[in-house]
Amino acid sequence: MATRRIQRTEESRRLLVTAAAELFAEKGYRQTSFIDIAERAGISRGSIPWHFGNKLGLLEAVLDERVHGMLAGIAASEGERPGDPLDQVMGFIRLPVTRLFITLLAEAVEVDSPIREHYARLHAALRQAVLARIPAQALSPGTTPEAFTVLMIGAIIGVHVQWRVAPEAVDLDAVRDAMRALLPADLGRA
Amino acid sequence: MATRRIQRTEESRRLLVTAAAELFAEKGYRQTSFIDIAERAGISRGSIPWHFGNKLGLLEAVLDERVHGMLAGIAASEGERPGDPLDQVMGFIRLPVTRLFITLLAEAVEVDSPIREHYARLHAALRQAVLARIPAQALSPGTTPEAFTVLMIGAIIGVHVQWRVAPEAVDLDAVRDAMRALLPADLGRA
Repeated sequence: MATRRIQRTEESRRLLVTAAAELFAEKGYRQTSFIDIAERAGISRGSIPWHFGNKLGLLEAVLDERVHGMLAGIAASEGERPGDPLDQVMGFIRLPVTRLFITLLAEAVEVDSPIREHYARLHAALRQAVLARIPAQALSPGTTPEAFTVLMIGAIIGVHVQWRVAPEAVDLDAVRDAMRALLPADLGRA
Repeated sequence: MATRRIQRTEESRRLLVTAAAELFAEKGYRQTSFIDIAERAGISRGSIPWHFGNKLGLLEAVLDERVHGMLAGIAASEGERPGDPLDQVMGFIRLPVTRLFITLLAEAVEVDSPIREHYARLHAALRQAVLARIPAQALSPGTTPEAFTVLMIGAIIGVHVQWRVAPEAVDLDAVRDAMRALLPADLGRA
């Protein structure tokens, strides 16, 4: 009985995160209400504060979940499993829900935005994940590992933007190969 | 008298484009009305359709004006004047009004967005400006000039995004130097 209640609690949480991710991507963060999210998830509105505290807590859960999948994929490619981090990234770009990151960005760069801090931590985590795998000696003289990391994370963000605006103009497979050629062998391996 | 009228017409147009750029960056495209723009510019609302046709025409004028400065700077660096295209780009990123490109992006990636097409043309023009200066033989085997161009324009977009979210975490001068090291000598020259 207790186990079933826990399962139902986790299921509710998952449904709410999925509904919120969809609605934030469709309408933006500020324009989305608890009522919208509860209706989409088919779950009572009162359970949202119970699960997430407030709307920012829900946004954090959405971002964590979406980014976790990508970072976990990159981390997995470091271990025994033969994975390709760049294929993971391109797969992430292709997910419909990844559009959310562009939609929310507009709000994140507003003055006094409540979600700017979340983006700052997200970008910092992505940079850290790449930076940890860049051997300084593999870079050109005058290139710092930090600056190179900003460039590579920037390239991923900006390739996503261009592809989302005009998918027919951006060949993601060719871009992946071009990016691999720029990366130290360990990070860019096929 | 006629000259003075032309001057006043050009002055009105300029004031309206500036006001619209500021308001689009602050409130987004859809949330900004002709009334807002006319008030900010100190010019009668009725003159906006006369100058720009409709709101999309005004947006086009704003984007054209903002991008024109950057492209003109890059073009100037090709000729006799010793300019640095990457310094031009970093200077463009630092302009307060450049935030507009992130704000509008959220609307550009919405389904049936009226401004998606404008972004598609803008990105295509930026890619074309870079592509024209990339000698295919300078690239790694397996890297197409088109894919390399998408990566470099992407890097600029994504560096802007990261810097706008957390300026203290992104050293634009170091990023410029790292980018220069990735570019064929002609494009990245100091």
